[in-house]
Amino acid sequence: MCDCVNKNGYDQREVLESYIQKIEPINQKVCEEARAHWDSIAKPLRSLGKLETMIIQLAGIQGKKVPNIKEKAVLIFCGDNGVVEEGVTQTTSEVTAIVTENFTKGIASINSFAKVMNATVIPVDIGVCRDINVAGVWQKKVAYGTKNMAKEPAMTRETCIQAIVTGIECIKELKEKGYTMVMTGEMGIGNTTTSSAVLSVLENLPVEEVTGKGAGLSSEGLERKIKAIKTAIQLHQPDKGDPIDVLSKVGGLDICGMVGAFLGGAIYNIPMIIDGFISAVAANCAIRLAPLSTEYMFASHCSAEPAGKRALEVIDKSPSLQCDMCLGEGTGAVLGAQLIEFGLAAYCEIAAFEDVDFERYTLLS
Amino acid sequence: MCDCVNKNGYDQREVLESYIQKIEPINQKVCEEARAHWDSIAKPLRSLGKLETMIIQLAGIQGKKVPNIKEKAVLIFCGDNGVVEEGVTQTTSEVTAIVTENFTKGIASINSFAKVMNATVIPVDIGVCRDINVAGVWQKKVAYGTKNMAKEPAMTRETCIQAIVTGIECIKELKEKGYTMVMTGEMGIGNTTTSSAVLSVLENLPVEEVTGKGAGLSSEGLERKIKAIKTAIQLHQPDKGDPIDVLSKVGGLDICGMVGAFLGGAIYNIPMIIDGFISAVAANCAIRLAPLSTEYMFASHCSAEPAGKRALEVIDKSPSLQCDMCLGEGTGAVLGAQLIEFGLAAYCEIAAFEDVDFERYTLLS
Repeated sequence: MCDCVNKNGYDQREVLESYIQKIEPINQKVCEEARAHWDSIAKPLRSLGKLETMIIQLAGIQGKKVPNIKEKAVLIFCGDNGVVEEGVTQTTSEVTAIVTENFTKGIASINSFAKVMNATVIPVDIGVCRDINVAGVWQKKVAYGTKNMAKEPAMTRETCIQAIVTGIECIKELKEKGYTMVMTGEMGIGNTTTSSAVLSVLENLPVEEVTGKGAGLSSEGLERKIKAIKTAIQLHQPDKGDPIDVLSKVGGLDICGMVGAFLGGAIYNIPMIIDGFISAVAANCAIRLAPLSTEYMFASHCSAEPAGKRALEVIDKSPSLQCDMCLGEGTGAVLGAQLIEFGLAAYCEIAAFEDVDFERYTLLS
Repeated sequence: MCDCVNKNGYDQREVLESYIQKIEPINQKVCEEARAHWDSIAKPLRSLGKLETMIIQLAGIQGKKVPNIKEKAVLIFCGDNGVVEEGVTQTTSEVTAIVTENFTKGIASINSFAKVMNATVIPVDIGVCRDINVAGVWQKKVAYGTKNMAKEPAMTRETCIQAIVTGIECIKELKEKGYTMVMTGEMGIGNTTTSSAVLSVLENLPVEEVTGKGAGLSSEGLERKIKAIKTAIQLHQPDKGDPIDVLSKVGGLDICGMVGAFLGGAIYNIPMIIDGFISAVAANCAIRLAPLSTEYMFASHCSAEPAGKRALEVIDKSPSLQCDMCLGEGTGAVLGAQLIEFGLAAYCEIAAFEDVDFERYTLLS
């Protein structure tokens, strides 16, 4: 099923390396200015907790003491996974294409969330197994789905790099269109299977521990899922020191696109919101490829997937939301972004100590 | 300092009892209809976790399959605490009145949050230690602050009941004005001291375990705070089986107002959002006075106060937000209410399985 519709993996590898070299730390001087501003505001010091640290990080990412998150996009990488043949999902791969198209009709879950916070939903076909025939989906297909990793590598190394570069270039495009914050999302039947496989290899965790029922598997289905992952890992022996090797052997095109998006955020100074389990696994790969990229990422919620908490812990991210959600599509990322909105409102609008009739609070120990 | 400006505690006790007798369980039939609606929506079953259960509860509270939370109020009970004399706070009681007035000027922390979600901020003077001279504050003063509980009971039993009835009647008034959801908040220098005292007695927890640095105490200040609470409990021996006794001896007028508000929510079918530590302690008292009132309450965030988590656990509420916040004023409640907004948008707008081209998901075990 997997046809590479793009060319020339070798050039792309150089492209990827030159992109990664552009990544710099966030602006610490601006972070300090933002911290000083918070401490000048008439409220108990540090009493907005993570909302304060998120705004400080945001200011550092954008290099602006007063950051701007007016134009927000939910970027949803859509792709199919050959491993679905192994009976690891409740629905068939057909659903990926249907939901991808539904994102443009405003009737998917993420559309309702995005509307509340006035964000634009942008589905990206990076690897859906059939052509997508509606306007509004970004046409970036790298392949018609991946191969069945339980039998052969999910994709070639070249295809994997191509998909990562595609993710980077999506962020470039969003930057050019004026977007200032991106929530990551994905749609791909079978993608908790690939995410569990990637996490198991990267973090050396038992497959059973990082694998769950995804969008609703039976216990027998879960057994098949665990078996498929174990088979794939056993068969291809991915090198945990080489994220590209891991992704190409047991990953998915949607995950690769998200990896690229996280790198793109760090390249183009765009704050990137991690969604749930799959997104956190992609963030993990991005951090391994470019450690500084972590400075451009925000955790949002802790997925209800069994390894949702672990997936964030291993990249040292602490979620603000515990809603037992596991829908994907960027739904958790939107809730996380909304917290940043609240934080920014407080940062910009609360009166300074100078303007109220009481003394500054001080930090005591 | 404490002058009862209202009369006749005995009548009020009967009034309170007759209010409490009106409380009924939420509408289970409507809850089931809401559950069925969620399960008809084209997304993996139960994948929105707590957002789904919150909307089901909301529907049951309002008795409507499609609940309405358009008109939202943040109700902030403001009151002073005599125990501040013991050096248990960083700022003086004067700050209570100033911030109460600032709520009407749109420059306090909660104003910036409420604006994001289009909620009305309503400060209630239930016990500020001086007269409040600005329009926009609800004038419901029961007393000019409480007495110093380290020396005498914070208030009489009659004053306590009066303050609770006042809280109930605030919700009645909001209901009449068309509000359909209420976020609880408070402002009162010294009110983590009273809340820790009340929680310690009610749940038989060591004072050291439930007492923290509030809005920023030094370690010596924390010692004074613990000592003041222990002294008050030792002196007045509040009866943990009688929440009114506990509240009147070691509580505060703001807490009493919130207790009444939680009861009012249950009486007038208004969904009530718990804020942080102080609010959770008030919710605890309300549940002890009227166990069914818990069905009308929603947890929001887990306060950064040391006993923030415990205060919710003991009333069997699970917070969705972990933002390390401890600002009060209803700020955490607003973030929690925003999650309900997202849930309701999904509930109302996502397409049904009938309207998309794929099969229903089923619940498997």
